[in-house]
Amino acid sequence: MVYKYTFGKPFETESVIDEPAEINRINCQQQDQNLAFGNVSINQNLLQNCNSSIPSLELSDFAFKYNYRLGDDDLIFGLGETTRGINKRGFLFKSWCSDDPSHTEDKTSLYGAHNFLIVYTPAGKTNPNPKAFALFFDYPGLLQIDCGYTSKNALTVSAPSADINIYIIEENHSFVLNAICKTFRKMIGKSYLPPFWAFGYQQSRWSYYTADEVRNVLKNYQKAGIPLDAIYLDIDYMQGYRDFTIDEKKFPNFAYFVQELKDQGVHPVPIIDAGVKADPEYSVDREGIEKGYFCKKEDGSVFTAGVWPGKSHFPDFLNDEARAWFGDYYNFLTKKGIDGFWNDMNEPALFYSEDGIKKVFAELKESLDDTNLDINSFFGLRDKVARLANNPKDYASFYHTVKNAAGETQKISHDKVHNMYGYMMTRSAAEALQRNLPDKEILLFSRASMIGMHRYSGIWTGDNCAWWEHLRLSLRQMPGLNMCGFLYCGSDIGGFGCNTSRELLLRWLAFAMWTPLMRNHTAAGTRAQECYAFEQVEDFRQIISLRYRLIPHIYSEFVYARQENELLFKPLCFEYPEDKIALQTEDQLMFGRSIMIAPVVEPNVRGRFVYLPEAMQMVFFSSSACGLESGLPQITEMEKGVHFVECEPNQVFFFIKKGHSVPLAMPAPCTAKLNCNDLTYIGK
Amino acid sequence: MVYKYTFGKPFETESVIDEPAEINRINCQQQDQNLAFGNVSINQNLLQNCNSSIPSLELSDFAFKYNYRLGDDDLIFGLGETTRGINKRGFLFKSWCSDDPSHTEDKTSLYGAHNFLIVYTPAGKTNPNPKAFALFFDYPGLLQIDCGYTSKNALTVSAPSADINIYIIEENHSFVLNAICKTFRKMIGKSYLPPFWAFGYQQSRWSYYTADEVRNVLKNYQKAGIPLDAIYLDIDYMQGYRDFTIDEKKFPNFAYFVQELKDQGVHPVPIIDAGVKADPEYSVDREGIEKGYFCKKEDGSVFTAGVWPGKSHFPDFLNDEARAWFGDYYNFLTKKGIDGFWNDMNEPALFYSEDGIKKVFAELKESLDDTNLDINSFFGLRDKVARLANNPKDYASFYHTVKNAAGETQKISHDKVHNMYGYMMTRSAAEALQRNLPDKEILLFSRASMIGMHRYSGIWTGDNCAWWEHLRLSLRQMPGLNMCGFLYCGSDIGGFGCNTSRELLLRWLAFAMWTPLMRNHTAAGTRAQECYAFEQVEDFRQIISLRYRLIPHIYSEFVYARQENELLFKPLCFEYPEDKIALQTEDQLMFGRSIMIAPVVEPNVRGRFVYLPEAMQMVFFSSSACGLESGLPQITEMEKGVHFVECEPNQVFFFIKKGHSVPLAMPAPCTAKLNCNDLTYIGK
Repeated sequence: MVYKYTFGKPFETESVIDEPAEINRINCQQQDQNLAFGNVSINQNLLQNCNSSIPSLELSDFAFKYNYRLGDDDLIFGLGETTRGINKRGFLFKSWCSDDPSHTEDKTSLYGAHNFLIVYTPAGKTNPNPKAFALFFDYPGLLQIDCGYTSKNALTVSAPSADINIYIIEENHSFVLNAICKTFRKMIGKSYLPPFWAFGYQQSRWSYYTADEVRNVLKNYQKAGIPLDAIYLDIDYMQGYRDFTIDEKKFPNFAYFVQELKDQGVHPVPIIDAGVKADPEYSVDREGIEKGYFCKKEDGSVFTAGVWPGKSHFPDFLNDEARAWFGDYYNFLTKKGIDGFWNDMNEPALFYSEDGIKKVFAELKESLDDTNLDINSFFGLRDKVARLANNPKDYASFYHTVKNAAGETQKISHDKVHNMYGYMMTRSAAEALQRNLPDKEILLFSRASMIGMHRYSGIWTGDNCAWWEHLRLSLRQMPGLNMCGFLYCGSDIGGFGCNTSRELLLRWLAFAMWTPLMRNHTAAGTRAQECYAFEQVEDFRQIISLRYRLIPHIYSEFVYARQENELLFKPLCFEYPEDKIALQTEDQLMFGRSIMIAPVVEPNVRGRFVYLPEAMQMVFFSSSACGLESGLPQITEMEKGVHFVECEPNQVFFFIKKGHSVPLAMPAPCTAKLNCNDLTYIGK
Repeated sequence: MVYKYTFGKPFETESVIDEPAEINRINCQQQDQNLAFGNVSINQNLLQNCNSSIPSLELSDFAFKYNYRLGDDDLIFGLGETTRGINKRGFLFKSWCSDDPSHTEDKTSLYGAHNFLIVYTPAGKTNPNPKAFALFFDYPGLLQIDCGYTSKNALTVSAPSADINIYIIEENHSFVLNAICKTFRKMIGKSYLPPFWAFGYQQSRWSYYTADEVRNVLKNYQKAGIPLDAIYLDIDYMQGYRDFTIDEKKFPNFAYFVQELKDQGVHPVPIIDAGVKADPEYSVDREGIEKGYFCKKEDGSVFTAGVWPGKSHFPDFLNDEARAWFGDYYNFLTKKGIDGFWNDMNEPALFYSEDGIKKVFAELKESLDDTNLDINSFFGLRDKVARLANNPKDYASFYHTVKNAAGETQKISHDKVHNMYGYMMTRSAAEALQRNLPDKEILLFSRASMIGMHRYSGIWTGDNCAWWEHLRLSLRQMPGLNMCGFLYCGSDIGGFGCNTSRELLLRWLAFAMWTPLMRNHTAAGTRAQECYAFEQVEDFRQIISLRYRLIPHIYSEFVYARQENELLFKPLCFEYPEDKIALQTEDQLMFGRSIMIAPVVEPNVRGRFVYLPEAMQMVFFSSSACGLESGLPQITEMEKGVHFVECEPNQVFFFIKKGHSVPLAMPAPCTAKLNCNDLTYIGK
């Protein structure tokens, strides 16, 4: 059963597009009026329909708080792209799309904002059967989700505004966690389906400065015999970071260049940034200003902030006309043969606002005249500079122009709808591409995201680091992202920031061979991270070749998960809800309907302990005896329980559930050459 | 066998004070002269005496490089306080004492600089017996140690100067790793022995602003029934962060206040910072200037840099007279009853140098007149400010005045001896305390360190964060620190930076109950981290009580390890060198002679997998049935192999080797009240 509670006048996010027919709608407007003063606990009668969650709510004129008392054994799942574990219990998160590349454990926000969570009570002394309910806070502004951090048994969700829709989902089902996810996924609509080639291996780097550098990457991959389906063009292909331009000096004859790569099975995938360079000579900017399609300040002037191109303007993607206008520009590149895009910097990231930097520079000028230069001047300077980027004040200083339900035009300040920005930018691209190229499958994924965007594109998990901790994080993020609708996902393999190591890259690849988006990406200034940059390149070739051999299976599981609103990656307890160890396993995942993966995610180990919640078939690929590239794996029956599995960085193992089998293709240099008809089945 | 290779004219560090009588000394001066031009590989004949390590060396006039080809199975141990795992293979480290509080995996330097490493080759196809050799680079400047990061089989150690002593240690012993450590530890001299009370539980926080706040902490601990032996005074007890002063307004009648705490079994432990406030009204600064005891710039003027007190001067701790002078000031506090100190900011941390900030401010002034405010001005501003702190140019800009072997006074630039600064500051304190209070045991530990300092004090592992990753890191750091002589060690329990959680603090305490220094410490601005700040305070009381029950055992193992130059914390493979799983276990440790610990270091788990390299006795303390506080634990015989051990955050388990037993005392509110004569032995 689904309950929908509406408080105040929620902003229409289109996150939910398919409410169940039998939904319980509770409009809380009336009660709201009565309770408009001070913090008042709403009595349970308002929410009594909802029998398991027993929430308590506090509302004031301007703020909202949801409280739920967690049992000692309760787990919390969901929340999409967040730091920390699969089980979110014990931490505090803030839904606020953020460009912060240092994803340490303490960070409360990453690039996405995904307000769906499940409270799960395993079977115990007081409840013979497991039970669960889910919450979706349909709200595009800042939401704080305290999962037992401040007080260990208090789940508290709060927002600065009481204009909010809350959905509560309950299911009676022996696999209640799966059932709840399925209901929610049905409500938010089918996930994006990328083109088949997007399941191939992909190489990226911020700092491929010329077409020849890109050609060189391809040549080296070919030379190493490593399959490849895409090479990415980061911000350097543009003219001074202007969207929908090409630096013809560095990338001459772009359409020819695109065709040249595609002839070799490789799709070039350019980046599109949210900010449009403020430049009267630049047609996109000029047109945006003329048509009034950029976000504006309160006084009606265009909001300006610094991002990669320097001073930039920000398309008002929440405005239907602006969205259509910007989206049509993608044609500039599709006409040159491009069939894949990644949308970046669309939280939106703001290095500084024009007003902000002016103010700080003025203050600095004053303080620099103070010759004391003491500790306070130093900290003052440091803090002023640090606070320039992604400043909350800046996000509150500009406005979107939107139409309300009555069709009237109204202004809304950005901070109230912040989390929709990347979602609407990506919708802008997806709708235009669908409109202009209805028969074409286009790869599209985004850095910032909100639930709803999953219908238009995939995501990557943003600017992670070459840390083992981030390999583990990326594994843990996948199930939560799937719960929130995002199926086409992956992390920057090897790590975006910092220098990777050969071993980390190999182990990361051996995990990421399961993620639909399998892209190696790194930042300018880091060590070369293409596979061929490391010793014994055959190890890389073999692991990536195995990915290609599994693509028929991965793709078909993807399509099934999309069609049936299932998870592609599941925590073990979703499938083994009675198993106490499965409940707390955070370094193994179920993949699709038949596989359990247990990647090696620690450095300097020759294997790992794996927990089998039931007897399974272990599939082991070694580089020599059992070919990763073309041979058949060793298959060993293994008992329920814990096992130490030896696995060198150039080997791969996984598990197939009993009674299941998995198809293997022969490897191919790119998906276009993959023979999906000649399959060998392993497992029985 | 120990080989000592001397190149050029190494600076005397006094890291090694007891060279073995049978040492092989190879003076490479002659060869050096011949090889002084360009990078020349020295032929093996120079080093042929050393049969297992087969090093290759490259020397030039100004640089040094040591190369060793690692086998695929080789492990690297040692390196003291570093990031990442117990096995250092695959990473790159830089010996350079650094104040960088964000200890993410990519950081190459922490606060200490410990140039001792062991290369271990387990038994394999080509070598039926394990073998190992150790290297100690006796060198106080920047040393880069590449453990197979750049090239997977290359161990490369390089330094900008070729004035260096290298010790190579080989042993023939069935427990070769232990034997090598023991030989090295004998060479560097016995580790510091702290007073008995320093094994009690200790509470700290940067921001106890007044004596009453401290009293309140004690009162709350007493009220909660949690044992306590020390409360720390961070920088706020001083007058404007001036060393050896007391803010009498906030801490009136200091001597009385100290006695008041000590009467209740609690030692107040004040901080001493390396930098002395530049202030003509402040006697320490005035005296230091008059006597010429501060570090100077090339022109002879006193070097000035900003730290907590603002502009400060830096005692020249490498100068014997200055060292004695500064050390005697500790009397100011011992006379008031103080018997413990922590030396901080002694890398030395530099927020900015006077010259550096003047230059940046001048540049900023100019650029602020540029009204363009484009992306380059922004990054320019940001980078200029970021580079102010701990700038290598600043470290090269000031000088120490030292005596050479011939007794002549000479100047040496700080960067050449950087890693000795914290070591010599702490030696300054230790020697003075010994001189002035020869019969008194004083607690002393330091943030910056180098091998040699272990004779004078302990260390804490610096400004970590409230991350689970840092709980794991702290466990992994202990064996390496022990190898380098540091026995009295611990991490900031709960994490210094960021907000901790109840669960993290409990699990951290359950690990740190084994570390000699058991101190909860956190930064200003974070959530309250005293145990009583959390729900169900009895859980904290019980775990800390168990620490007190184990103090007789921990202390006696400490004294034994110190006396016999043994490790207190050992990686499993040091004791089970033939065991393949022990070789790669990084989340369990051997403690002393009879115990194996396997702390829970992951969030949201109800237990963990534990690997037993042989049958052992599991000791399990639960809060209810088997009393952590006073009762006896459950003891279960467990087989060799892997086991899932259930353990809630308020429970503790560990293992006793067969045939061993461990004494338990009854808990006490402080070490002074601990009855070490009434012991119950568990295990058999």
